[in-house]
Amino acid sequence: MIDTQKGNRPSIRLKPKANARAIRHGAPWVYDNELVTDRRTKGIAPGTIARLEDADRAALGTVAVNPNSRIFARMLDRDPDAVIDKAWLAAKVELALAHRARLFPDPFYRLIHAEADGLPGVVIDRFGDTAVIQPNAAWADVLFDDLAAAVAEVTGVSTVVKNASGRARGLEGLDEETLVERGAVDGPIPVPMNGATYMADLLGGQKTGLFFDQRPNHAFAATLSNGARVLDVFSHVGGFSLAALANGATTALAVDGSQPALDLATQGAEATGVADRFDTRQGDAFDVLTSLGEAGEVFDMVICDPPAFAPNKQALDAGLRAYERIARLAAPLVGPGGYLGLCSCSHAADLDSFRKSSVRGIGRGGRAAQLIHTGFAGPDHPQHPALAESGYLKALFFRLTA
Amino acid sequence: MIDTQKGNRPSIRLKPKANARAIRHGAPWVYDNELVTDRRTKGIAPGTIARLEDADRAALGTVAVNPNSRIFARMLDRDPDAVIDKAWLAAKVELALAHRARLFPDPFYRLIHAEADGLPGVVIDRFGDTAVIQPNAAWADVLFDDLAAAVAEVTGVSTVVKNASGRARGLEGLDEETLVERGAVDGPIPVPMNGATYMADLLGGQKTGLFFDQRPNHAFAATLSNGARVLDVFSHVGGFSLAALANGATTALAVDGSQPALDLATQGAEATGVADRFDTRQGDAFDVLTSLGEAGEVFDMVICDPPAFAPNKQALDAGLRAYERIARLAAPLVGPGGYLGLCSCSHAADLDSFRKSSVRGIGRGGRAAQLIHTGFAGPDHPQHPALAESGYLKALFFRLTA
Repeated sequence: MIDTQKGNRPSIRLKPKANARAIRHGAPWVYDNELVTDRRTKGIAPGTIARLEDADRAALGTVAVNPNSRIFARMLDRDPDAVIDKAWLAAKVELALAHRARLFPDPFYRLIHAEADGLPGVVIDRFGDTAVIQPNAAWADVLFDDLAAAVAEVTGVSTVVKNASGRARGLEGLDEETLVERGAVDGPIPVPMNGATYMADLLGGQKTGLFFDQRPNHAFAATLSNGARVLDVFSHVGGFSLAALANGATTALAVDGSQPALDLATQGAEATGVADRFDTRQGDAFDVLTSLGEAGEVFDMVICDPPAFAPNKQALDAGLRAYERIARLAAPLVGPGGYLGLCSCSHAADLDSFRKSSVRGIGRGGRAAQLIHTGFAGPDHPQHPALAESGYLKALFFRLTA
Repeated sequence: MIDTQKGNRPSIRLKPKANARAIRHGAPWVYDNELVTDRRTKGIAPGTIARLEDADRAALGTVAVNPNSRIFARMLDRDPDAVIDKAWLAAKVELALAHRARLFPDPFYRLIHAEADGLPGVVIDRFGDTAVIQPNAAWADVLFDDLAAAVAEVTGVSTVVKNASGRARGLEGLDEETLVERGAVDGPIPVPMNGATYMADLLGGQKTGLFFDQRPNHAFAATLSNGARVLDVFSHVGGFSLAALANGATTALAVDGSQPALDLATQGAEATGVADRFDTRQGDAFDVLTSLGEAGEVFDMVICDPPAFAPNKQALDAGLRAYERIARLAAPLVGPGGYLGLCSCSHAADLDSFRKSSVRGIGRGGRAAQLIHTGFAGPDHPQHPALAESGYLKALFFRLTA
């Protein structure tokens, strides 16, 4: 690896028509079609630290370059001579840690949420003594050892897992691997959240084994749970179920396609001390919703937290129809005056579209509703102001009044 | 008053071009230009219960009519023969009460939030043993005695205040008055919320003396408050200040144009036991923000919760500029890694526009930020699904990272 830090770093230059003003005002990405590219720039090694200039060669900042990605450059620092080393990384982690330490009594949270936390493409989740790093951009692959060392030093974790299995890595042309870089992972980790204990399998699970982003939506559902019979569809490791049971729900039934996820949910129910009120059903969610409806089953609260039905614009129409279908099948299962929580983690489905599909589905399910709460990802998932419209996670809570 | 209940109620009819389908699917309002109006319909007394029909004279439901309002008819019941009496009103209040009783340990909340709770134009806030009813539609004026009796019976409150001072009443052609209809109001009422005690002046205050809608946003600010120096601009009776102080803030300074509101805030601080850490400053918020900036004052959290700068579409551009100016003046007062909460209660400014104005203001104030939380009105302020886009209250919490 050549040293591309201060002094001998390459420069890349915006085309005259590119929006330099947006970058000066904080936009964190530069697309390949905004840059003057030639054989030299296309030959820059992925992950190289470079200097970004406007069309007049005035410096805009220090960027990380990946010629294999549509996002050719990612802003790291407004100082064009910033040295991106372990100390620089540690300063970002420290700033992020101060926020999480203020928010949460226990060290279980998303520690770094990519662009918004100043580390483009990098996602780090903390599970007590273990950090799981997703280096979803080439520069973070190159600097991974420094990043892992900075995280360990700032947070004091003894174990670092590199989770390089994300979809985003494909877009960056990066390979896939998951391995324990430091320390050891010895089975699922118990995670305290909203009064429940979840089991997170950091090596085998989806994403990093647990979705911290839903924490405030779990908490909102929990405030409605006292004495409630709860149906938790697409439950993963029991996110909504266990929070509800820990806060007074009388029963919860978790439905998921993945038996390993349901097994972790059952372990979580045992760790929470609510296993006697918890049940699981493995199967296709649409099928299970349909058969519960045919059986005339009724719950006080039904939550549906499906995978992204509309991960991109091409999938938007079909995705919105799937969200409507979920609402239509779930609404009849809610008792009078009960609650229906519908979630979407689709980037492409904005809040308005998702709400309209949900409302239409509830109506087609023969029910009238009031919208009582709209929630997003928790505050350990900050958004970059220039990317805030892409907030992916939405949770709508309805009360069915008739 | 003629009896317009079942049997001898007038009928009103949609024009052929009107959207009967939207009404069948839940739209709660019928505008004057959607109806066949003649001397007979225009002569219907405001508040009369009527039967709504489509252009083919098929019944759509029971509505309340006000020929003096652009909203000519408001849907009360899908049953065209529903009798709108005390029992009907009591059933609506009971359904609404069950939700609030589940949400809140203490009986202090918005009990009825108009259309979403099935009582169009009616707002009822509950302060323990006292209910404040805002009958902001003609039908609720006509049936006020039944409504007050239903509320008293279902909730057990002994005091009912009629607050007929709302702006919405002007649009309905209704007069203004505020009076104690039952029982007695003996000075400000202490209101427990988020660990603090607020003082609500039900006869002299803005709206109904206290804004319950901000409760979850106060709570979110409180989670960030430990050890923080807080600046609460447009504080009213100390909404954000007292919640922050009750949850560990070291100091709070409340700024408002109204000395009576600040006096209530000080009484609340005393009732909360935090008066020694609480200070107030009466004055124009823009002036105070400017002078604090000139004095180089710095806080760990700054909250700005101004009145509606964009109450209608005509005021939108000026309103958005005012929100931007607030953000620009407030951002420099936030210390490194501190928090800035910006609120809007403007119907006309949607979430995207308000966020963009806020982000621009923060940038012009020389700061970089991450958006950590977006909040709305609390779950005792449900939204009617057909009116959900008009959600008026937005709260954006930023962390200023540089």
